[in-house]
Amino acid sequence: MTESFFTPIARIHSCFKEKFGIPRQPNLVKDAPATLVFEPEFARPEAVRELSGFSHIWILFVFHQSPPGWQPMVRPPRLGGNQKVGVFASRSPFRPNPIGMSPVRLKAVEQTAQGPVLHLRGADILDQTPVLDIKPYLPWSDIIQDATGGFAPQAPGSGPKVEFSSPALAQCRERGKKIPNLEALVIQILKNDPRPGYFKAHENKTDPPGEPGDPDRIFGMRLFDFDLKWTHRGERIFVIGLDPVK
Amino acid sequence: MTESFFTPIARIHSCFKEKFGIPRQPNLVKDAPATLVFEPEFARPEAVRELSGFSHIWILFVFHQSPPGWQPMVRPPRLGGNQKVGVFASRSPFRPNPIGMSPVRLKAVEQTAQGPVLHLRGADILDQTPVLDIKPYLPWSDIIQDATGGFAPQAPGSGPKVEFSSPALAQCRERGKKIPNLEALVIQILKNDPRPGYFKAHENKTDPPGEPGDPDRIFGMRLFDFDLKWTHRGERIFVIGLDPVK
Repeated sequence: MTESFFTPIARIHSCFKEKFGIPRQPNLVKDAPATLVFEPEFARPEAVRELSGFSHIWILFVFHQSPPGWQPMVRPPRLGGNQKVGVFASRSPFRPNPIGMSPVRLKAVEQTAQGPVLHLRGADILDQTPVLDIKPYLPWSDIIQDATGGFAPQAPGSGPKVEFSSPALAQCRERGKKIPNLEALVIQILKNDPRPGYFKAHENKTDPPGEPGDPDRIFGMRLFDFDLKWTHRGERIFVIGLDPVK
Repeated sequence: MTESFFTPIARIHSCFKEKFGIPRQPNLVKDAPATLVFEPEFARPEAVRELSGFSHIWILFVFHQSPPGWQPMVRPPRLGGNQKVGVFASRSPFRPNPIGMSPVRLKAVEQTAQGPVLHLRGADILDQTPVLDIKPYLPWSDIIQDATGGFAPQAPGSGPKVEFSSPALAQCRERGKKIPNLEALVIQILKNDPRPGYFKAHENKTDPPGEPGDPDRIFGMRLFDFDLKWTHRGERIFVIGLDPVK
């Protein structure tokens, strides 16, 4: 079969600087800010005319950091990472054509000297992701009220309780002066428990330091320009710090 | 920017044999049947494991019959074809990357000797369309209850009344023995009034034969293996026949 060639029209600038920690679906991090900046060839103000009337848009993008190749079966994190389903029954990045699709809130359309910039909220998209297309979310077409959802019919539960150490809370509030809703965003991210499945399987163990069940293990992910660090205490997540990236 | 290239994983077999007459959004033709047949390389039973548990799926496809190139502005049929909006504020096929996206009902997953075949309903997709990806429709992620919809906030109205001539109704019922819900499908298609905007602008005129406002003008589209023919009588649509394609 003939192949199709597509040119990225834009790039995403987001707070998610690495794959680890990105929530698995967009609506789980409604406070995650992102901007979409058009490539020069497509940075035409008229190409987004009337777009600002839509509250939400679809972003079609390339999973650009996923390794090439595909497997017919994947292990969705929603099933604890132990059970396999067909790749087409999942939204996994490891697909024959690594195209991702997310509905996000369109906060504003800004016209700049370099062309339009879209301000987004709730994007579960890695920084620097190439964008293939932008489409309006049409409620009368895209909302399917009677749809039922296979092995993942419900949104993930409310998740573990997230608490901040006093220094972490102070850091968060200081950084929050420049980043609106940062505290809420940290909580949204951690409630999704970004740890790989094998750590969850060792939960409540008291393995030696360095092992998956080490109760003092510290997890970290890059968020904006800092390292978010946390640890698990039974059912609770404890935020240790938000330090500048070294 | 680097280009991405994608390989079609499957093809759509649908009742829509030409672009003219295809409804502009999938949920407008809930009875339109289609099948999705995988290319040999991707025809793996395990790649669709657990898919049948989802009532609806997204099909990402290539607008393969749209001419290459793009324009920053398009004239959506929902605005009568007279008003321009940005291409990214529309679902028009004339996009920088001609990727289409439709949520359709997954009626059944059939395992055949040539691999899985998906039986679909409500697909607004041209016959022989190359498919890039299949994703489950996740209600808790894809339904955005508070989304509002710009210049096309509502579904199209109920449309004109569609009536059948006696011979057309007899033909429809005869063909309907092999094609379930054919009568309903014809009505769904015609209620969307597939005529180009300039015919609507001349409605209720009495132009000479051959002109847009010719009240006796007969419209036709290919549907399955027959020609659906109709004419307009004021606010009503009159089905003239369903003849075999010559």
